[in-house]
Amino acid sequence: MTQRPTNSFPDVAGAPGFDDILAAAARIAPHARVTPVLHSRSLDAIAGCELHFKAEPLQRIGAFKFRGAANAVFGLDDETAARGVVTQSSGNHGAAIALACRLRGIPAHVVAPSNTPRIKLDAIRDFGATLVSCEPTLAARDATSARVLAETGGELVHPYNDARVIAGQGTAALELLHDVRGIDALIAPVSGGGLLSGTAIAAHGLDASIDVIGAEPEQAADAHASLARGERVTDMTPDTICDGLRAQLGTLTFPILKAHCARIDLASEAEIVRAMRLIWERLKLVVEPSAAVPLAVILRERQRFAGRRVGVILSGGNVDLDALPGMYALAR
Amino acid sequence: MTQRPTNSFPDVAGAPGFDDILAAAARIAPHARVTPVLHSRSLDAIAGCELHFKAEPLQRIGAFKFRGAANAVFGLDDETAARGVVTQSSGNHGAAIALACRLRGIPAHVVAPSNTPRIKLDAIRDFGATLVSCEPTLAARDATSARVLAETGGELVHPYNDARVIAGQGTAALELLHDVRGIDALIAPVSGGGLLSGTAIAAHGLDASIDVIGAEPEQAADAHASLARGERVTDMTPDTICDGLRAQLGTLTFPILKAHCARIDLASEAEIVRAMRLIWERLKLVVEPSAAVPLAVILRERQRFAGRRVGVILSGGNVDLDALPGMYALAR
Repeated sequence: MTQRPTNSFPDVAGAPGFDDILAAAARIAPHARVTPVLHSRSLDAIAGCELHFKAEPLQRIGAFKFRGAANAVFGLDDETAARGVVTQSSGNHGAAIALACRLRGIPAHVVAPSNTPRIKLDAIRDFGATLVSCEPTLAARDATSARVLAETGGELVHPYNDARVIAGQGTAALELLHDVRGIDALIAPVSGGGLLSGTAIAAHGLDASIDVIGAEPEQAADAHASLARGERVTDMTPDTICDGLRAQLGTLTFPILKAHCARIDLASEAEIVRAMRLIWERLKLVVEPSAAVPLAVILRERQRFAGRRVGVILSGGNVDLDALPGMYALAR
Repeated sequence: MTQRPTNSFPDVAGAPGFDDILAAAARIAPHARVTPVLHSRSLDAIAGCELHFKAEPLQRIGAFKFRGAANAVFGLDDETAARGVVTQSSGNHGAAIALACRLRGIPAHVVAPSNTPRIKLDAIRDFGATLVSCEPTLAARDATSARVLAETGGELVHPYNDARVIAGQGTAALELLHDVRGIDALIAPVSGGGLLSGTAIAAHGLDASIDVIGAEPEQAADAHASLARGERVTDMTPDTICDGLRAQLGTLTFPILKAHCARIDLASEAEIVRAMRLIWERLKLVVEPSAAVPLAVILRERQRFAGRRVGVILSGGNVDLDALPGMYALAR
């Protein structure tokens, strides 16, 4: 593979640089875990390539999201921090913001639609955040967020369209590339694009020749469509069991991925469930469906990965164990 | 807690010493993984103590058994090794012996009853061992082993009643105590007693005041009964989902545990399944039922562990995912 110079990627306005990822790594070091990189000879044999899995289910709150949230929260100046942080996510990002705020000792407000599953709300409340309920529409959610922001003077931390969050997410790839030498492709799931953007900037800051690949469910393929058309596709309705991958690219993450990504590969729901099960069986790691999309893609696009040394970001492990039998049924 | 001098434990004839565990650690280092120690604040809150989990599902073959097998196989002199190794286990020990022998490039013979599940036989064959089938009786198994030993001149490596195996198993506790300072109790599952014996010798070689506790299913409580009566109980019939815990103490492991163990605590089948599920959910680690017995015991004997810093050996993660719904039913 020809070595590309690092400056071969176009600048993207507002995007974090490699230095921001290094700064994020230092900032979150007292709070986040350095997760292990797992390897399985039997999975290598099945895939026909060498796979190194970054085990983010072992990160705090069970997902990489803690990295970006901690970088944003601990990067605030004291005066801003004292007014607290506001976010709209009731998923892993919401839990991550809640925990990071508790660790810093500042208020967190999480705006959540009234139909959010109770288990998610309980997790966020357990971390000490204030829940603000709203009608389950996008308009109500935005209006409620605006009201809370106005009332508190707090800081909005978006789950992915935020340079601080992207820089934090990039620290997972940084650690992986530190642990394993000679990685020539890095693959991560893509939804809003924060993880994949951070992964790409980290990788290309170290070695511009690394192929950075997104993995997306066929049934939520807006990132794939966006890169194919050269413009952000925002009118698709996702229909996937990957509850972490139903967002769409943001105005900041789209140009970053356009500049850095080799491609977005797709996998079917059945392929994703089969890959998830393989990871449970062979790596002994509990991963959520979203985290299995990269392996599903590798097994589907086998010839494109043959013989390569591939880094895989296993994004998270927050899955309802009672839902497993139903998921298995999808793979038959 | 009063500090006990290390020499306060009676000598046991034929038992490995702390030096043997150090030697085992050096011998297996090129082959075995140093597994991570996992920690979960939410599990600590549930248990009311501080828990540090040694993640042996991430060991090669998915269980601690590789440690003892590798120590025995790589400790053989070249002449003996060339004749190969014989074992009777078709479970994790059999797979571990098969892999260790393949890595050393010597023959492995695994004697297995004809009713052994196909999936286990396949795993052992995949590692390159020769399977020798026999009638499913203890007498047939012993006779077949004796015949294979006579024909090959090979070395028998027993799954637990063997000082080399015990020394190897002790390396897991050694690593755990190296990673986490101030552990005051160590708990591991007990079946034949190899893991618990090695754990005790490693712990007491470093700090005689550490309480070493065995965890055993109520429905396979021969070790508990043996320590209570002061003699080896060999007439109990185990009836537990913990397929790794159906053996009974050996003539070597029994006196070691008598000398070193504070006690054996018990857990019911339902408690074991609930603890297994908690580990999957909170640690994101796939563990087999046997590996969950220590946590089940800690949650049952809560007051005995309150406020302590406890090391837990999670022994393995080889579980049939299709059997999960049936296991859950046991916990209701």
